[in-house]
Amino acid sequence: MTEAGPAAPAAQLATRGPVLLIGTGLIGASIGLALTAHGVPVRLRDASPSAQALARDVGAGEPEGPDDEPPHLVVVAAPPDVTAGLVGAALHAYPHATVTDVASVKARIQHELEGFGVDLTRYVGSHPMAGRERHGAAAADSDLFVGRPWVITPSAVSRTDSIRVVRDLAVDLGASPVEMTATEHDEAVALVSHLPQLLSSLAAARLVTAPERALGLAGQGLRDVTRIAASDPTLWASILVGNADHVRRTLRGVRDDLDALLSSLDRAAEDGPLALGALAGIAGLISAGNDGASRIPGKHGGTRRRYSEVTVLVPDRPGELGRLFSEVGEIGINIEDFQMEHSPRQKVGMATLSVLPGVAGTLVTELEERGWRVVVE
Amino acid sequence: MTEAGPAAPAAQLATRGPVLLIGTGLIGASIGLALTAHGVPVRLRDASPSAQALARDVGAGEPEGPDDEPPHLVVVAAPPDVTAGLVGAALHAYPHATVTDVASVKARIQHELEGFGVDLTRYVGSHPMAGRERHGAAAADSDLFVGRPWVITPSAVSRTDSIRVVRDLAVDLGASPVEMTATEHDEAVALVSHLPQLLSSLAAARLVTAPERALGLAGQGLRDVTRIAASDPTLWASILVGNADHVRRTLRGVRDDLDALLSSLDRAAEDGPLALGALAGIAGLISAGNDGASRIPGKHGGTRRRYSEVTVLVPDRPGELGRLFSEVGEIGINIEDFQMEHSPRQKVGMATLSVLPGVAGTLVTELEERGWRVVVE
Repeated sequence: MTEAGPAAPAAQLATRGPVLLIGTGLIGASIGLALTAHGVPVRLRDASPSAQALARDVGAGEPEGPDDEPPHLVVVAAPPDVTAGLVGAALHAYPHATVTDVASVKARIQHELEGFGVDLTRYVGSHPMAGRERHGAAAADSDLFVGRPWVITPSAVSRTDSIRVVRDLAVDLGASPVEMTATEHDEAVALVSHLPQLLSSLAAARLVTAPERALGLAGQGLRDVTRIAASDPTLWASILVGNADHVRRTLRGVRDDLDALLSSLDRAAEDGPLALGALAGIAGLISAGNDGASRIPGKHGGTRRRYSEVTVLVPDRPGELGRLFSEVGEIGINIEDFQMEHSPRQKVGMATLSVLPGVAGTLVTELEERGWRVVVE
Repeated sequence: MTEAGPAAPAAQLATRGPVLLIGTGLIGASIGLALTAHGVPVRLRDASPSAQALARDVGAGEPEGPDDEPPHLVVVAAPPDVTAGLVGAALHAYPHATVTDVASVKARIQHELEGFGVDLTRYVGSHPMAGRERHGAAAADSDLFVGRPWVITPSAVSRTDSIRVVRDLAVDLGASPVEMTATEHDEAVALVSHLPQLLSSLAAARLVTAPERALGLAGQGLRDVTRIAASDPTLWASILVGNADHVRRTLRGVRDDLDALLSSLDRAAEDGPLALGALAGIAGLISAGNDGASRIPGKHGGTRRRYSEVTVLVPDRPGELGRLFSEVGEIGINIEDFQMEHSPRQKVGMATLSVLPGVAGTLVTELEERGWRVVVE
């Protein structure tokens, strides 16, 4: 597939218009932007007139009108608690359209729809695994879905051609479609999305009353663990109540581990660090964490591989990081991953470059020859 | 202070030799490397002859000998459970030396020492907040402490000149000395270091039995939260038992929050997503997490500030990231932070550049003029 861009002809896309977008927040407007850019006609509807106008202004499509041709595809991109109602109404209003939604919980919506008595053969739920911390059409981006998984959750009655329409939408937007049942999806996101969100929030919540001087000792570990704790409380509360059953099952496992850990710590606090079983209990949890973390797929969906890390001290001045990357480019070595660590109080950064183990030695030698201060990990 | 380097004269350092290093792992050998590079005489002692030889080979100092001049400073860099014994023996053997240790728990060691009946006026505990995932002298690095806090925990009887000797060591190695009581230190690291380690491990431990397809949906949030779950179980178990009392107090707070969260989820799972109090309970935790996360100091120890984020799509080919940074350098804008996000399955990366809000617009325009696909957040 050639690169997407405003000048590309509409014929490249499999998605047929008109597409009606119900809900024009970040996800809806991003879908609208990408389709409009390829010439697919997009109509917009939002309960908020100003949200709808903003989506039009950023180029996500045109507001719907009374004389519009009926849509071929309806995408409901609304909060999870109103999604089923909007999907049901769209199935009723447009008897030839495929209808999908993009809510981040799936089984509850399917279940609510089954109570409505509408034709569900044209409904196919979906969930693009994309987003960002900012919301609304102002943050919309036609590349939002590029390279992300887009989960598609057909029900037992979904028509094959409707499933195809939703798959085509995902592929047209640069995403990788992944088919699952609604329950399989909800279980998966409880683990890979809702669990880390909650543990990040639990960690960060402990810092509310922390002494300032303690926070001054914070390093990269704390920053990484608490990064997503900055997420929107209202949005997340509605996602979590919608997937309450799977989330609580996962969290009960966490509580069991936490209780075991606390009883190991109690033993160590009361009987000293060599208390029977204390070390083994704690090491067992850290070790299980090693195993779990090693199962997370790495870059580009492949199995995680061990890279060699080369850390370079970078003065905090404009152009220095640029010079580093430019010189790595000259050396001709591909950077597999990159992390910038900041030193508190000092004007120096530590850039950690992950490279294939076979080339780390060359990289170190070449960088040192160019005057960089390098550390190999 | 001018830049440290192998050619710099010893006169630059305030630290006086000979320095005896007891324990030649990562921390000990890194101290030895830095001091040796400045001409300070360093003697090495390790319970393991091969560890001691390795430290000598990497340039951390010379093995101690029977005719050595008595040390002016002894640094015990051994595991926490043997530290007090080694400190006590050193205070006894070298009646004119200042003795410090670098263990990551402090009150327990002070307490053990008080039971020994040795002269503790020359003992000053310390803890450089530095480390890495690899261990041993082979991973030693004279820049390991540059820009990191180095906590110094004098006791009520510590002599002023001994405190000065340890402060000088920290400053000579490029660290920022921070004075605290042993208890204040242990409480602080329970929060900023031990808590995130354990929550990361608790999250990752849930993935051990996760279906492969669920893991395929993992995004950057899960990766960030579980990054430090890859830490060494044996080392961490010994750190945590040594600080069991503070760690369990912090974790009890986590358990209380977790129990409240579970009861909100139970209500939502049983009475539906609008169950009384469920949304508020969950939003309350996420919101507390927002508050806690916002208290973590940002780059260079200052208050965290809001940067504008500019995300650029980078093809996964050697030199592309280099070209990006090189062009940002040409544009003349300083990058405050950088994050690379990888797309599963697709050969494209998303580089997020954090810049001062006032220059984001210029950066976007200039990058787009150079043909980059840019997203503003």
